[in-house]
Amino acid sequence: MNLPPAPLRLERRVDFSQTDAAGILHFSTYFIYMEAAEAELFRQLGLRLLWTEDGCTRGFPRIDCSARFRRPVGFDDLIRIQLTLTDLVANRLHYAFQFFGPDGELCASGTLVTACALRAPDGSLQSAPLPDACREALLAWKNQAG
Amino acid sequence: MNLPPAPLRLERRVDFSQTDAAGILHFSTYFIYMEAAEAELFRQLGLRLLWTEDGCTRGFPRIDCSARFRRPVGFDDLIRIQLTLTDLVANRLHYAFQFFGPDGELCASGTLVTACALRAPDGSLQSAPLPDACREALLAWKNQAG
Amino acid sequence: MNLPPAPLRLERRVDFSQTDAAGILHFSTYFIYMEAAEAELFRQLGLRLLWTEDGCTRGFPRIDCSARFRRPVGFDDLIRIQLTLTDLVANRLHYAFQFFGPDGELCASGTLVTACALRAPDGSLQSAPLPDACREALLAWKNQAG
Amino acid sequence: MNLPPAPLRLERRVDFSQTDAAGILHFSTYFIYMEAAEAELFRQLGLRLLWTEDGCTRGFPRIDCSARFRRPVGFDDLIRIQLTLTDLVANRLHYAFQFFGPDGELCASGTLVTACALRAPDGSLQSAPLPDACREALLAWKNQAG
Repeated sequence: MNLPPAPLRLERRVDFSQTDAAGILHFSTYFIYMEAAEAELFRQLGLRLLWTEDGCTRGFPRIDCSARFRRPVGFDDLIRIQLTLTDLVANRLHYAFQFFGPDGELCASGTLVTACALRAPDGSLQSAPLPDACREALLAWKNQAG
Repeated sequence: MNLPPAPLRLERRVDFSQTDAAGILHFSTYFIYMEAAEAELFRQLGLRLLWTEDGCTRGFPRIDCSARFRRPVGFDDLIRIQLTLTDLVANRLHYAFQFFGPDGELCASGTLVTACALRAPDGSLQSAPLPDACREALLAWKNQAG
Repeated sequence: MNLPPAPLRLERRVDFSQTDAAGILHFSTYFIYMEAAEAELFRQLGLRLLWTEDGCTRGFPRIDCSARFRRPVGFDDLIRIQLTLTDLVANRLHYAFQFFGPDGELCASGTLVTACALRAPDGSLQSAPLPDACREALLAWKNQAG
Repeated sequence: MNLPPAPLRLERRVDFSQTDAAGILHFSTYFIYMEAAEAELFRQLGLRLLWTEDGCTRGFPRIDCSARFRRPVGFDDLIRIQLTLTDLVANRLHYAFQFFGPDGELCASGTLVTACALRAPDGSLQSAPLPDACREALLAWKNQAG
């Protein structure tokens, strides 16, 4: 399999529903864009973000997240998203993101930490080991020569 | 159990994220409000909108919906939502909605049709009978003397 | 200017945030996709959906909308959206939409009616004439030989 | 004017559209809840989050935000939100939030920093002084005896 280039890049246009009464992209949308880039990375690496194993749903619930906003962007603007995998420790994935507006300038940045988990039959979330294939693919992508 | 009054009434304030660059409530939000009223009805009747039975997830996928918009509403406006069950045929529920703005005037109306269904082990959705308890509670509520 | 082909086509991937606890795309998202296709049409025709003229904000508030759902789609599915301009009467635009899932089958269809309007200084929305350039571009696109 | 109690408390029910295919509240929704609590605070203090002055739109664009997630919550759960104003420096407001699930346990926490700004006629956002009335009301609320 060919590895996608690192950092992973994705483009998204600002939908009208994602703007707010201040006339700009609502800040919560940046977290939607982070997940869109994460999903693109997993798709290109042939990995799954949600699956069933031994009768339990497994996935990557979010542990924490942050974002910093520099410049507003508006309706119909094309946003370029960059995702970097900054750390992979035990079953936790640490991502960093940069968002560039139509003028090429940085408009926001952010972080996201997820951990592999399973949903037990009683509905509780429990920590689960990161599947080997997932670790190997992510590390191969992270460590490739630029 | 005391039946909630019919039509069911619910209030919601317009969040900033639900406004758009035109400075008004984004129209897609009315469908979110419809579901909030439906959830309130089911909760008050002691019914479930999503459950597991015989190993299959069951619920009420949406069949069709519509809305008509009369007057714009804005950020922080208090919206009064009214839900009526207009029809209950076989496993299908037909709802009608009216939305009133802070001045008491009608700002939008809409309809929603749902059908009881189960998710088969292969992932497909299949029509399922409406549980008797659900039918009885909904009809008792619908047919009560005003 | 080259006219985009009719019907206008756009693709969107289902974001994780757009799924719901039933494991499928939430129905309100189809209205977001309708607007994304409308925005793509206006962009390709060099038209604006929101602008300021004579000190008033002008745009296309939604008049009514509907959708019918045939087959569920899930996280990460690629949705193909088709937009047709079915009617253009006075200042009203009538659109019809079809949505196709990853297997190429129709998963939903819908309609949207918008009307050109301006926001008066007192905040009220008032009907406004459709700009000539907008009418001409939309009709040229609608009436082109397939 | 009676000051609302500090911390400010608000309740919200989890809408079906706010859940995701993992069966839990989507994490981006916590930022929507933060804004709902901020809006409730401003409303109760008689303050505005968005207004026009000297022909310029003024408001409080978000500077940065963060959230940490402890326990999942699901559809129809009642979430109790607590907002604290942790700092008010120059034109910047620093908020902290705690979210409690239906069992009364902490399910998430977060922060939000906003700054008073105006939108210049060229569309750019520029730093603006915090209105005196806004500062005074916020400090009176923050510093009241518990």
